[in-house]
Amino acid sequence: MEESLEQIKQRLRNFAADRDWDQFHSPKNLAMALIVEAAELVEHFQWLKEEESASLQNQKLAEVEQELADIQIYLIRLADKLNIDLLSAVNHKIELNERKYPAERVHGSSKKYTDYTA
Amino acid sequence: MEESLEQIKQRLRNFAADRDWDQFHSPKNLAMALIVEAAELVEHFQWLKEEESASLQNQKLAEVEQELADIQIYLIRLADKLNIDLLSAVNHKIELNERKYPAERVHGSSKKYTDYTA
Amino acid sequence: MEESLEQIKQRLRNFAADRDWDQFHSPKNLAMALIVEAAELVEHFQWLKEEESASLQNQKLAEVEQELADIQIYLIRLADKLNIDLLSAVNHKIELNERKYPAERVHGSSKKYTDYTA
Amino acid sequence: MEESLEQIKQRLRNFAADRDWDQFHSPKNLAMALIVEAAELVEHFQWLKEEESASLQNQKLAEVEQELADIQIYLIRLADKLNIDLLSAVNHKIELNERKYPAERVHGSSKKYTDYTA
Repeated sequence: MEESLEQIKQRLRNFAADRDWDQFHSPKNLAMALIVEAAELVEHFQWLKEEESASLQNQKLAEVEQELADIQIYLIRLADKLNIDLLSAVNHKIELNERKYPAERVHGSSKKYTDYTA
Repeated sequence: MEESLEQIKQRLRNFAADRDWDQFHSPKNLAMALIVEAAELVEHFQWLKEEESASLQNQKLAEVEQELADIQIYLIRLADKLNIDLLSAVNHKIELNERKYPAERVHGSSKKYTDYTA
Repeated sequence: MEESLEQIKQRLRNFAADRDWDQFHSPKNLAMALIVEAAELVEHFQWLKEEESASLQNQKLAEVEQELADIQIYLIRLADKLNIDLLSAVNHKIELNERKYPAERVHGSSKKYTDYTA
Repeated sequence: MEESLEQIKQRLRNFAADRDWDQFHSPKNLAMALIVEAAELVEHFQWLKEEESASLQNQKLAEVEQELADIQIYLIRLADKLNIDLLSAVNHKIELNERKYPAERVHGSSKKYTDYTA
């Protein structure tokens, strides 16, 4: 993991330790907390049209930013608990995706996209 | 955003552009895709006891690693689309949490934890 | 609870008892299982435009029907475990909503809808 | 669909029509709203031990009851929009499950349960 994510990981460890909250941070519980934050993100978009979701007002954008942060925090915390290197995992997954969806084969239509990624 | 997340952001941009998939990546749709990946993570833990979730076998751990990667990928992609700097957002949120939950006040019991964070 | 939901509740009890699966059905675990099924539903819609989501092809519609069934099953099971009468809860909630969102005040625009229900 | 669910379906139709909210109720949006409610349910349980989740205090139980109601409401609404009969779908799915997980074969261990239902 690179320097800054590494620093955040350590900061979150200290945050939990200082509050004796480590006891609640089983991977099972952290996965639940993460999906709850993901849903708070979804809630911001549920009644918007797609194009509206791409041009949020400042207040709403600031709230969405906090939801993204919450998701990232639980993701780092969960990876730490499972001893997973997030950035390595991401790079590995992108390579898998590049082989799974060759650009020349899947270029274009929504139908193809849906079929390939469903 | 630091160097490596920045590189992944760019790599994901190219990945979408090469496949003409950008058209599907509205923030609304990306938020949906993110929560679907979060649920695939939750699925791995749903019938496990908390302590079992902390000691996964290799095969299961590798699957969980891929789910974490998928969540991270959609999170980077969504932040990119909304022009949000993920790491800044995280550091800002941690500062808010440090003020919201002072260690000396919330130290300890599950009840307190639940009350403060619910 | 009315006759048929009551019958399904009993059938699901027997199903779990016959397999000795009751031990896994804590409310916590059932809530996780329910959201996993909800995400499988969301997955069907994540790349579709809103109008496409309203005119699904037969095969897709049949899959969505199974997801709705899975959600309903876990909902009935969870209500049973918590000794909650689902239909009473629903009728009570609709009354609350009718008072919270008076038709003459919230009629119309998406903005109002978003504000009132966010 | 049996009498009472049928009545609720009609009542929810009127509720949306009276407020001109039907325009927001695409299946895509309703699926998002449903998972958001499912997450509010999960949030009540995320830091609880399994056994705690089975013995909620009155106040918490009342809140959980409202979440179950919200999920049921969106489920009925979504089924209505897709012209799906919820109870038929459930009965059909239970029959599939009974064949997929024969009691004599899957009786017992968590490992089996996880394998069979993952």
